[in-house]
Amino acid sequence: MLIVGEKINTSRKEAREAVEKRDAAFIRSLARRQAEAGAHYIDVNCGTFLKEEPELLSWLVQEVQQELDNAPLCIDSPNPVAVEAALKVHQGKAMLNSISGEKERYEALLPLVVQYGCKVVVLCMDDQAGIPPDAATRFKIASRIIDGLTAKGVKVEDIYVDPLIQPISVDTKNGLAAAETIRMVKESYPGVHAICGLSNISFGLPERKLLNQAYLVVCATYGLDAVILDPEDKRIMALVYASEALLNRDPYCGEYLKAYRKGFLKM
Amino acid sequence: MLIVGEKINTSRKEAREAVEKRDAAFIRSLARRQAEAGAHYIDVNCGTFLKEEPELLSWLVQEVQQELDNAPLCIDSPNPVAVEAALKVHQGKAMLNSISGEKERYEALLPLVVQYGCKVVVLCMDDQAGIPPDAATRFKIASRIIDGLTAKGVKVEDIYVDPLIQPISVDTKNGLAAAETIRMVKESYPGVHAICGLSNISFGLPERKLLNQAYLVVCATYGLDAVILDPEDKRIMALVYASEALLNRDPYCGEYLKAYRKGFLKM
Repeated sequence: MLIVGEKINTSRKEAREAVEKRDAAFIRSLARRQAEAGAHYIDVNCGTFLKEEPELLSWLVQEVQQELDNAPLCIDSPNPVAVEAALKVHQGKAMLNSISGEKERYEALLPLVVQYGCKVVVLCMDDQAGIPPDAATRFKIASRIIDGLTAKGVKVEDIYVDPLIQPISVDTKNGLAAAETIRMVKESYPGVHAICGLSNISFGLPERKLLNQAYLVVCATYGLDAVILDPEDKRIMALVYASEALLNRDPYCGEYLKAYRKGFLKM
Repeated sequence: MLIVGEKINTSRKEAREAVEKRDAAFIRSLARRQAEAGAHYIDVNCGTFLKEEPELLSWLVQEVQQELDNAPLCIDSPNPVAVEAALKVHQGKAMLNSISGEKERYEALLPLVVQYGCKVVVLCMDDQAGIPPDAATRFKIASRIIDGLTAKGVKVEDIYVDPLIQPISVDTKNGLAAAETIRMVKESYPGVHAICGLSNISFGLPERKLLNQAYLVVCATYGLDAVILDPEDKRIMALVYASEALLNRDPYCGEYLKAYRKGFLKM
């Protein structure tokens, strides 16, 4: 399971304050802590800053990569100007989060994906359907985007489909709709990855972490192989290691045992 | 999810000591606590007592049912003499745990299932294959037993197939083999239930509860609708409620919210 650390996002108070103050030390510590807790990619998102986003996003990229010996980042913005500014300074192969079937977004970001040869997250939504309630329509949108990307030379293994998680408090079918999208994508496009954030699933319900944790295991069972989360949440990381072992994706339970020895499984 | 409380089992020290001393008060408190924690059936097992098993099992049935206003029990023994003694005194519809494809066991227990009209747990094993490593063979055994039971008039909804969980420490394919058996049974025999205990999955590995918890969610995702566990383990019960809500088996998240109000989801 590929772990994308979600904490450097200015919709979160501590990150917003740090970016406001250009507090590089704090940003670097957020990056370092997530990497040490098991994140493979560090997400950077300063979308709340609007006009300053391009400048701030490239600043974030540079600070985090300097701290982490050029570990790869997840450039999290729908704004092509900010994305390009970030990709220009990013060392190595970035992940772009995200493209979608929305015409304007797709056409603005596709050339950047191709030019910079980055991995790309694909949201299952477009102008006509918005976020469709059902798996079949989400799959259709994903399918069209995957075909479009690969036609431009993007490799299937660089594509991460995000089914888009909607709250079960709004409709109890929402959990399975996203999970089923994952299954359909992975079955029809071997090599393509599935990624998601988890916290939307529990919006409007009590004990949200419990639901997010259980949903991680549900989605892993349906084929999820990348996830955007807080790697400092030990319980959910422990469930990642446990799921991988249980679903026969961890030969000899090697990663599970390594996580145990590092103290990652102790609650 | 139907919950079978596993604590009155003389392979557990506190239960063994209580049965040795005929400590009815302690047995009754074990029963009461499990029922209050959400168990729908209380398992009774005193197989460690061998010769005394028939007498002790019927004693357990009577004590527990008196304590719980004749709530239904899960009569847990392969010994037809003990099973019959227990069924004779059991009030209402019991669950027999368990029959299997082993000729002697099958032939001895089938008449009791029919005569007493009880629910029955079916183990996916027989004399030829033992516990087969793969899902296809387990399904074949389950299939033969289900067909045999229904031919004798047992209703499909009274049948609970136990795929038999084997440790992933022995073979990392074991988790999926049992889960896949559940899926095959539920797809081919709508109405038939799937049940299992969880703790075998984690045998030989550290942080066993973590693996058992994650495996509960994996199996629920594959269609498990009954489980034998310790209902006083709040974490695993919370995951039961969360899974049901996430998998669209809890309209309006009603049971989840009820469990929350009862304090069952707080860790």
